[in-house]
Amino acid sequence: MLGEMLENVRKKSPLIQNITNYVTANDCANITLACGASPTMSDGEEEAVEMATLCDGLNINMGTLHPRSIKAMLLAGKQSNVCGHPVVLDPVGAGASSYRMETAAALLSEIQFAAIRGNISEIKTLANGKGSSKGVDADAADAITEDTLPDMIAFAKEYAGITGAVIAVSGAIDIVSDSKKAYVIRNGHSVMAQITGCGCMLSSLTAAYLAANPEHHLEAAAAASIAMGLCGQLAYDKMAAQQAGNSSCRNYLIDAVYHLTGEQLERGANYELY
Amino acid sequence: MLGEMLENVRKKSPLIQNITNYVTANDCANITLACGASPTMSDGEEEAVEMATLCDGLNINMGTLHPRSIKAMLLAGKQSNVCGHPVVLDPVGAGASSYRMETAAALLSEIQFAAIRGNISEIKTLANGKGSSKGVDADAADAITEDTLPDMIAFAKEYAGITGAVIAVSGAIDIVSDSKKAYVIRNGHSVMAQITGCGCMLSSLTAAYLAANPEHHLEAAAAASIAMGLCGQLAYDKMAAQQAGNSSCRNYLIDAVYHLTGEQLERGANYELY
Amino acid sequence: MLGEMLENVRKKSPLIQNITNYVTANDCANITLACGASPTMSDGEEEAVEMATLCDGLNINMGTLHPRSIKAMLLAGKQSNVCGHPVVLDPVGAGASSYRMETAAALLSEIQFAAIRGNISEIKTLANGKGSSKGVDADAADAITEDTLPDMIAFAKEYAGITGAVIAVSGAIDIVSDSKKAYVIRNGHSVMAQITGCGCMLSSLTAAYLAANPEHHLEAAAAASIAMGLCGQLAYDKMAAQQAGNSSCRNYLIDAVYHLTGEQLERGANYELY
Repeated sequence: MLGEMLENVRKKSPLIQNITNYVTANDCANITLACGASPTMSDGEEEAVEMATLCDGLNINMGTLHPRSIKAMLLAGKQSNVCGHPVVLDPVGAGASSYRMETAAALLSEIQFAAIRGNISEIKTLANGKGSSKGVDADAADAITEDTLPDMIAFAKEYAGITGAVIAVSGAIDIVSDSKKAYVIRNGHSVMAQITGCGCMLSSLTAAYLAANPEHHLEAAAAASIAMGLCGQLAYDKMAAQQAGNSSCRNYLIDAVYHLTGEQLERGANYELY
Repeated sequence: MLGEMLENVRKKSPLIQNITNYVTANDCANITLACGASPTMSDGEEEAVEMATLCDGLNINMGTLHPRSIKAMLLAGKQSNVCGHPVVLDPVGAGASSYRMETAAALLSEIQFAAIRGNISEIKTLANGKGSSKGVDADAADAITEDTLPDMIAFAKEYAGITGAVIAVSGAIDIVSDSKKAYVIRNGHSVMAQITGCGCMLSSLTAAYLAANPEHHLEAAAAASIAMGLCGQLAYDKMAAQQAGNSSCRNYLIDAVYHLTGEQLERGANYELY
Repeated sequence: MLGEMLENVRKKSPLIQNITNYVTANDCANITLACGASPTMSDGEEEAVEMATLCDGLNINMGTLHPRSIKAMLLAGKQSNVCGHPVVLDPVGAGASSYRMETAAALLSEIQFAAIRGNISEIKTLANGKGSSKGVDADAADAITEDTLPDMIAFAKEYAGITGAVIAVSGAIDIVSDSKKAYVIRNGHSVMAQITGCGCMLSSLTAAYLAANPEHHLEAAAAASIAMGLCGQLAYDKMAAQQAGNSSCRNYLIDAVYHLTGEQLERGANYELY
């Protein structure tokens, strides 16, 4: 079933609107193409509604916020809701400033998200209304470990119930959950934390998977996280073999997404269901 | 003669002003350096006139429009006209929103372009004043095929006559035309549609070629399209040999531009004149 | 001692705020991660003060200036001064427009910089209050050669005395100087001038090195310049071996920073002290 999620992206080639930051926009566009979807990247409030109508899904990323892009996010998000297109929220650095916290709160109150994807500190910040983000990275204190896993699963399920969104928490262990069922995913590699934009890219990927699988948002989001993790592992292997570093590894990761098949995803997936 | 167009870029190293989008700006800057020219990338209205005066050519790209960048485009474009520097328009996603359509119309009415470069849907949108763009990609219905080629050549020549600009239509087949003569170019590779910014990069390259060849805008624009196509083929070959994907392929493409000689361009060029 | 500067970055993993341009932001973020530090990239005035407080150092880059980012630079710079965090200025293209000149003057008058890093034309523009930049590249007339070296060292020392900042001049020969002592560095490779953002990346690197070595700003800035030069040489070697070009070379350079050790830095450093 998870492999089918991937194949549907290649079959349907959904058009994904990304209102995102200027740091990782290029990688987000290339990973969207790599998975078989097609990106638009405008953050203009003047065209946000038209773009949302034209596209099949929307990815909202809070990386480099400014008042114009926030207006575009709200307009596009509400229009996507009207059109029935899935909307993904990536609350980058949600706890790092009050501006980010307030923006996240406004987005959550105005838009019904299909999925919210971030690191554990970001997701906790949204849920608690106050944060502890160390910039854009998760706090060590928040890390998901085998010990904290049961609590984290319960938290993700609860917050999924409150928001009506699939909650996708990325880290050494990923949790992708709706209110009833949680995928606990052990794909991925630690090098991904040393590549800027791995989270952003996963959010773009998630939007593509959701748009192509409207009836299966949980499975689609889980498949996207597994695909990203698997490709991170493949990229690390190539990086190590070539004595390359994090910049080449970013290319190898997107390259791996470009080639990944549904069958490979099924075979490589390492997860449990709770 | 086409090889000479390339060599003049390396000899004269023109300074090219790019008012462009934040998604592909890095690739545009690197391809400008790769071909032997030098980029400036400011989109500030405050300095648009000074930059236009300082530079030898201007590339206007509508990828991520906002009111400030549009003002910069208009100021820099008009100043470039005053200075006699060539201006290239890349009407990214022209048909995807009324904001883009209106912006394109304003640019066309205020600035005399030396070349207009886009996919067939974008160019048709400009010519017809209404669009059918599916985001930033060409509509399948618009595709240039052997069947539609004669009509497309006639269309390009006619629109070149109306605008006084070289019209460069990119796709599986490229058409680069003034009002009298059209290059029909069969270089390039389909992978280029899976790399974000191939069109943007070609527009930067075209601006550099035009600035270095003021007496031969048609041939310069054709040489730029052929160079891009040849390098796309070379990049695909390297990508396939290394089992890489679209992200590495982007690097290989710029790398190929870095090494391309006038002789290789002449030898690899695959075109007919109409 | 220079190797220690590098190792302290990996040990302390400082959080570096980059208020920078959208052309090279991705490379700046990845090189910050590669050296062992952690980047934030927001240019929002709304959160500039909070980010400056949260982070351990600040890098201000004038690449694509706009009124909002200038406000963020001033707010974050002053707050970093209050917090005792080092601030680096990269006056990109300072002489290319009056807007850039005025912005640089405002930044210099409001913020105490720990280091100012640019090419010789940019630094001269700051010192003289008028410029001769050819876009973002140094004027040939300004080039540091063996003949002009003694004058350039004297200039760097004097300007360091005036500003109270370490002055880092990048070029074929680098000069990194405070008012008393100058490192004259002969690492690096000419290919670096053909990769967009090498200067920007070095400024990010310098901010990370300074933040991790608060007692040794001169040595830290020198170590950063040497590290960048060494990695440029390594990247060129790999590029040449693989017949690659400037785009791949950019990746190899960041990759090399990812692997560089303090011992390699010590061993490869090629400099004299004046």
